[in-house]
Amino acid sequence: MPPKLLPGFRDFYPEQFAERAHIFETWRRIVRRYAFQEYDGPPLEPLELYTQKSGDEIVGQLFDFVDKGGRAVAMRPEMTPTFARMVGARAQTLRKPVRWFSMPQLFRYERTQKGRLREHFQLNVDIVGEADVLADAELLSVAVEIMAAFGLTASDVRARVSDRRLLNGLLAHLAIDEPTWPAVYAVLDKLERQPQEISAEKLAAAGLPPATVEVILGFATLDFATLQSRYGQAPEVAPHVERFAQYVSHCDALGIADWLRFDLTIVRGLAYYTGIVFELFDNIGEFRAICGGGRYDNLLKSLGGTDLPALGFGMGDVVLGELLKARGLMKAPAPSVALWIAQAPDSASYPTAMLQTAARLRADGHAVEFALRDQRVEKQLEAARKAGSLATIVVDTTDAAPSYRARAAGAQEAIVQTLDALSTWASSTLNRTDTSHE
Amino acid sequence: MPPKLLPGFRDFYPEQFAERAHIFETWRRIVRRYAFQEYDGPPLEPLELYTQKSGDEIVGQLFDFVDKGGRAVAMRPEMTPTFARMVGARAQTLRKPVRWFSMPQLFRYERTQKGRLREHFQLNVDIVGEADVLADAELLSVAVEIMAAFGLTASDVRARVSDRRLLNGLLAHLAIDEPTWPAVYAVLDKLERQPQEISAEKLAAAGLPPATVEVILGFATLDFATLQSRYGQAPEVAPHVERFAQYVSHCDALGIADWLRFDLTIVRGLAYYTGIVFELFDNIGEFRAICGGGRYDNLLKSLGGTDLPALGFGMGDVVLGELLKARGLMKAPAPSVALWIAQAPDSASYPTAMLQTAARLRADGHAVEFALRDQRVEKQLEAARKAGSLATIVVDTTDAAPSYRARAAGAQEAIVQTLDALSTWASSTLNRTDTSHE
Repeated sequence: MPPKLLPGFRDFYPEQFAERAHIFETWRRIVRRYAFQEYDGPPLEPLELYTQKSGDEIVGQLFDFVDKGGRAVAMRPEMTPTFARMVGARAQTLRKPVRWFSMPQLFRYERTQKGRLREHFQLNVDIVGEADVLADAELLSVAVEIMAAFGLTASDVRARVSDRRLLNGLLAHLAIDEPTWPAVYAVLDKLERQPQEISAEKLAAAGLPPATVEVILGFATLDFATLQSRYGQAPEVAPHVERFAQYVSHCDALGIADWLRFDLTIVRGLAYYTGIVFELFDNIGEFRAICGGGRYDNLLKSLGGTDLPALGFGMGDVVLGELLKARGLMKAPAPSVALWIAQAPDSASYPTAMLQTAARLRADGHAVEFALRDQRVEKQLEAARKAGSLATIVVDTTDAAPSYRARAAGAQEAIVQTLDALSTWASSTLNRTDTSHE
Repeated sequence: MPPKLLPGFRDFYPEQFAERAHIFETWRRIVRRYAFQEYDGPPLEPLELYTQKSGDEIVGQLFDFVDKGGRAVAMRPEMTPTFARMVGARAQTLRKPVRWFSMPQLFRYERTQKGRLREHFQLNVDIVGEADVLADAELLSVAVEIMAAFGLTASDVRARVSDRRLLNGLLAHLAIDEPTWPAVYAVLDKLERQPQEISAEKLAAAGLPPATVEVILGFATLDFATLQSRYGQAPEVAPHVERFAQYVSHCDALGIADWLRFDLTIVRGLAYYTGIVFELFDNIGEFRAICGGGRYDNLLKSLGGTDLPALGFGMGDVVLGELLKARGLMKAPAPSVALWIAQAPDSASYPTAMLQTAARLRADGHAVEFALRDQRVEKQLEAARKAGSLATIVVDTTDAAPSYRARAAGAQEAIVQTLDALSTWASSTLNRTDTSHE
């Protein structure tokens, strides 16, 4: 017996592949509408590429090893370091803003659980070279329009959006020292999932006075209008409120405002993001985040020596696929056999006429199959049925003029056209063939 | 500075990605005409999956390591073992013949040279469950039609075809002992590339009498018609000649006979193939094999416990890409920005009207870009030109009825239609917007 596939990895049989292809094609179709260009990098990179960004702790989650040339290498756990390297190497010549996307397979050695395997495909969409908040709105619009393209609506999915600068301004306004911010961020990140007493205790332990603790706890339900009226005049907060209001207005013009929820508990990677951050979640709260991203203006400089503002998101195929299935929206395409060609094996022109007919139809772009062995016509028709073919065309060259009979299960009109085209072609071509074979 | 990419691996910047996409799309388009279904497996598999097929020697060429769970694993160097595992696991329920294809990225730790990197993408096309020679013709037809789809002709590429059973029959007829066959195979494999004296010496050293050595050396130029007339009546050879003649006739009916060259020096893996084998080469002999495959009726049983006849081929992207470039046939698609939307930033409706227009055009499936920051219209038009946009549409909402001016570089008629559709939509939608923003 052959060894089984590794835990956390997937086989894609044609039916699973069709689902994956549906996700990939939808991703590509929408992202291209936004004029992003596709790129890719190697699935194996120097280990240092990842430790440089994430520190040595990440090694514990990697498929890393030493190759036969003595190089410390790792299978890519994320795309951003490769992206930063590639953009960095051509930073001078690339048209700005860079608008690129990729759909890499990524690898992490983690405990497998619902929505998390050891590999997944992740759509990465990034913009480099634009600090304006319009770029942030454009980016979110891509993510949201992808949801819509899958048939999801604002009742199914919401985009939870925060702004790191706005939050920092609020913390400064609340007289919280900058060294304390990480502790506050950590509490905000878990505000939804841990009991409020624990959050309060942690904030108190970080040195926050009781009144400030109450304010922070209130961030869980603070909407943007309330924030605007309450803090909009505070000098540490005002410019960030104004920018975020612009962002909301842009999102509105782009037609995605319905999906947007202001949410200060969206924190994401502390060392990484610098501005607006967002995550897409199903409204029921049944699944992990579908997508996450935001602005990371300092990262490219710290990784690649290129000082360019940047923003982007990642959207994996696993959580998305689970959500689509749960909502009945996973639409696998039709079977790949469109036409089946059959011919009686005792005909003098068998299998030549059948093969020529198949070649003719394939040249027209049809997906065509036929029995690869000598079988009775009934057997061939049965095989066609099992293959799920849309129509079966039986070649008959016994008369002077070759003829075609079709049994169509669907797409009737197209079949009639196909038969007409075949008949015209066959009366010249197949007759000659018959003669030469008789 | 970030670490560089590993030797033998590739970055795909958008221009290289476009070439890769051209290859992938052509592969898919043609293979689907033959009603093959796409599948995929994990790029990381248990090491044993590969040593089981190829022995421990293969480990020297692999990216193999021990994962954090103590498993000996390897990045996939070929697809067949994964394919065999997947088919084997569902051998009872899968419709036969299985017609599957895949386009995996494969990895080998080898010395990099022309046409050979440490990773490449390889189209794998396989048929399982059919012993008839019609399946062999169908398989070759896929490979040849792919060549034609790239614009290559029978003057550019030939399919060199041999048959393992026919060759064995000939060797038996020539009274060569079966234990000597591997030595003869090894000489045939190199007949084209090594001096004839060396080939003759090696055959003599294997115990062949001088007259037989001459016959074997003559295999380099032995065409099928000559073979048929010379050995067609020999009982060890006759059934195989008959089968091969049928194969040629099927290839003729499928329209690919022009590409076919009978060639007994095509040997391929000794332990692997059992029947017709083939390789595609450029006619000038400038490149390595573009594609190779054949019938491997015993492999699935030896790997997966499934006793089913099978055949398939692999076609990599590296040699193919080099050949297409050398022949001027590498056609990268048009730039991804179709339409650029501009608007004067001092307009009252900026950027709302611009964003709404972009969203409207994207909803129609157009690839649309616009400046992500407040810029003079001239700057925006310059950016559009640099992006290679097919047309720029300037939004003007200063009059009562919003208007559009287009500067089209191509696809004029489509642009006119787009503008018509926009105007109808804009007179209702954008006017409302203007009012609400004034």
